[in-house]
Amino acid sequence: MSSAISPLAPTEITDMPAVAGVKFATAAAGIRYKGRTDVLLAILDRGTTVAGVFTQSKCPSAPVEWCRAKLKSGKARALVVNSGNANAFTGKTGRQATALTAALAAKAAGCSPNEVFLASTGVIGEPLDATKFDGVLATLAETAAPGDWMSAAKAIMTTDTFPKLATATVKLGKANVTINGMAKGAGMIMPDMATMLSFVFTDAPISASALQSLLRDGVEDTFNAVTIDGDTSTSDTLLAFATGHAAASGAPKISRAGDPRLKAFTKALHTVLADLSEQVARDGEGARKLIEIIVEGAVSKKSARKIAMSVANSPLVKTAIAGEDANWGRVVMAVGKAGEPANRDKLSISFNGIRVAKSGARDPSYNEQEVSAAMKNPKIQIRIGLGLGKGRDRVLTCDLTKEYIAINADYRS
Amino acid sequence: MSSAISPLAPTEITDMPAVAGVKFATAAAGIRYKGRTDVLLAILDRGTTVAGVFTQSKCPSAPVEWCRAKLKSGKARALVVNSGNANAFTGKTGRQATALTAALAAKAAGCSPNEVFLASTGVIGEPLDATKFDGVLATLAETAAPGDWMSAAKAIMTTDTFPKLATATVKLGKANVTINGMAKGAGMIMPDMATMLSFVFTDAPISASALQSLLRDGVEDTFNAVTIDGDTSTSDTLLAFATGHAAASGAPKISRAGDPRLKAFTKALHTVLADLSEQVARDGEGARKLIEIIVEGAVSKKSARKIAMSVANSPLVKTAIAGEDANWGRVVMAVGKAGEPANRDKLSISFNGIRVAKSGARDPSYNEQEVSAAMKNPKIQIRIGLGLGKGRDRVLTCDLTKEYIAINADYRS
Repeated sequence: MSSAISPLAPTEITDMPAVAGVKFATAAAGIRYKGRTDVLLAILDRGTTVAGVFTQSKCPSAPVEWCRAKLKSGKARALVVNSGNANAFTGKTGRQATALTAALAAKAAGCSPNEVFLASTGVIGEPLDATKFDGVLATLAETAAPGDWMSAAKAIMTTDTFPKLATATVKLGKANVTINGMAKGAGMIMPDMATMLSFVFTDAPISASALQSLLRDGVEDTFNAVTIDGDTSTSDTLLAFATGHAAASGAPKISRAGDPRLKAFTKALHTVLADLSEQVARDGEGARKLIEIIVEGAVSKKSARKIAMSVANSPLVKTAIAGEDANWGRVVMAVGKAGEPANRDKLSISFNGIRVAKSGARDPSYNEQEVSAAMKNPKIQIRIGLGLGKGRDRVLTCDLTKEYIAINADYRS
Repeated sequence: MSSAISPLAPTEITDMPAVAGVKFATAAAGIRYKGRTDVLLAILDRGTTVAGVFTQSKCPSAPVEWCRAKLKSGKARALVVNSGNANAFTGKTGRQATALTAALAAKAAGCSPNEVFLASTGVIGEPLDATKFDGVLATLAETAAPGDWMSAAKAIMTTDTFPKLATATVKLGKANVTINGMAKGAGMIMPDMATMLSFVFTDAPISASALQSLLRDGVEDTFNAVTIDGDTSTSDTLLAFATGHAAASGAPKISRAGDPRLKAFTKALHTVLADLSEQVARDGEGARKLIEIIVEGAVSKKSARKIAMSVANSPLVKTAIAGEDANWGRVVMAVGKAGEPANRDKLSISFNGIRVAKSGARDPSYNEQEVSAAMKNPKIQIRIGLGLGKGRDRVLTCDLTKEYIAINADYRS
């Protein structure tokens, strides 16, 4: 864990309300880190539904495979998250470690191992010694209490420089329901770690299938629209749990994602996911600038996404922003290499609202001094107009600095 | 141009024989650089055939569009290359600059503008003032002489730290034919430049269509198998010129790429292209390690290429090598994100011949000390076994160091 907090960290601590039916406890199990918590147990009341989305990696971690298999029932009673070891690329040992962890958690929580969800983040390729959880999980289950979201978010950090929390409260029917979320980030660009984890909890009474559908839609323009360095993790996990407790205060039970009563909830879920994913971008390793890339006028949203990602993942664009250089030539390059329809002579590019290029050449009204001043802002918006159609998309990333190299090259030495 | 020569530069200067029918002259036209040559004119004898492959960018430079259009006739009499300005994303002004340059060169060389080929490398988005070539090209045409390949290779450098030359002499029929090539690289990762240029010259009597076919095949496992940072240029240009002079010494005239008499020539052309492209990797910005990635056991060569490129472009893998860390977890991650068929539990990984992982987990015989010693080598070979099929491929890249960030972030400030 880096000692210096990212300059892009939120300036206010989020005040998190409780979510009825969710209890937490954290402990220091000594997986890898010393002198800090590294295991989180969440105990979920009976009746909690669960949904999840995971890494698209062809080499997923053992916990990802475990969660995928257990998701089918749609029921959850416990979540165990450890930091320091990803339990990825650990073969049969890895599968045994997940089974043992789930068995220990199930015993502690009084449920079936099939209702236990697991996530691990940290070094890839090292066996995870799950026997370290023996005893720890039983104690955690006894002490679990509602409320301490900050401690929970801290226990799942690896090289994150700040804990990531977000919350929203909205009407479902006539009742208030709460959506709380936490995430760990930075990891997609971190040494040996390559993980992004996020957990969302709500008291809304929503069926697992409806929740799954909401989550899948919600992730598209939030977590899936963030990149730090284009390196997709073996462990990315986003789980959402709905305890249903708000039914007691009159919230209607929802079984279909298309239910019109979900409108406010869907929007609030999106807000929470967007908030968490932006915090991930703000804590990208070595990040000094938050970069928002907006592509407009593409032939489709999908095409706009590909172009935005090509720009967001370009080391030349990212280093230019680090150098506070409005280098539109590199943006042109990244648009050109995306392989999507683009017409150079219709291209326009703006940095923080100042147009630097239009119709495939430098904007005649371009003023270097004005643009240079704008580039000193900690948030840089690159707006790209393709002039071809109505496809639009937005992606968040951060700049690429020497600090990134220092962290990732010097890690094990 | 960086003052420090890459530690991966070849230790011997290549002795280049003359190619009959090719003359060079260079000059300092003051395009961008001061106190160095920045324009190269090659004069080609009548009867010279030409072939070319170019960037796949959707936003190609004006010279790339010019060459594509002129390639149809298959005839060349002159080549003009300037460094310092890429004439890319320059709109109508850019097209006018190419037309003016070609007209000036045609007048100087006594040929049609349609027989003039152009390449520019340098800043993107700045208009190229082609009037600077007026007078210069006429003088160059008068002084052009065979032989000084080193000066020619130097004139096309931008931020390259060494000139890149390669040569081969082989039998075509009973005659000796020569293939000489030069390249400028580094540029794919360079500030504002984003260009890779290479020019190959031979005295072999080969038709334009046959040469085009050989070049297209030859580039696949050479230039197309090199990546510095995954940023594809707007200006990538590889042109091959065949003067045909060897016909006078008995070389048979070749019209088809499938001609069996071309066997040695095809192999030699591949060797020259492979040599030049390796030199490009060795001069990647900030490079301290040459990285060779071999993927075996993939379902196809195409699949192996995608996986090798995913590893080669991963900032986490590249920074690990910079830190002399045999971090196979990051290689697993990069294999997993490639989106190609891969079975984690069949995966094996070696660094410089030492197997660190097999069957989806750490190799039991893995010895950290032995691997650490091997990682100090300036050349690192990563061999990945997928265990699925017979697909194999090889890609070259370099490590990602703080020097890369320094060059690309601090350039314009």
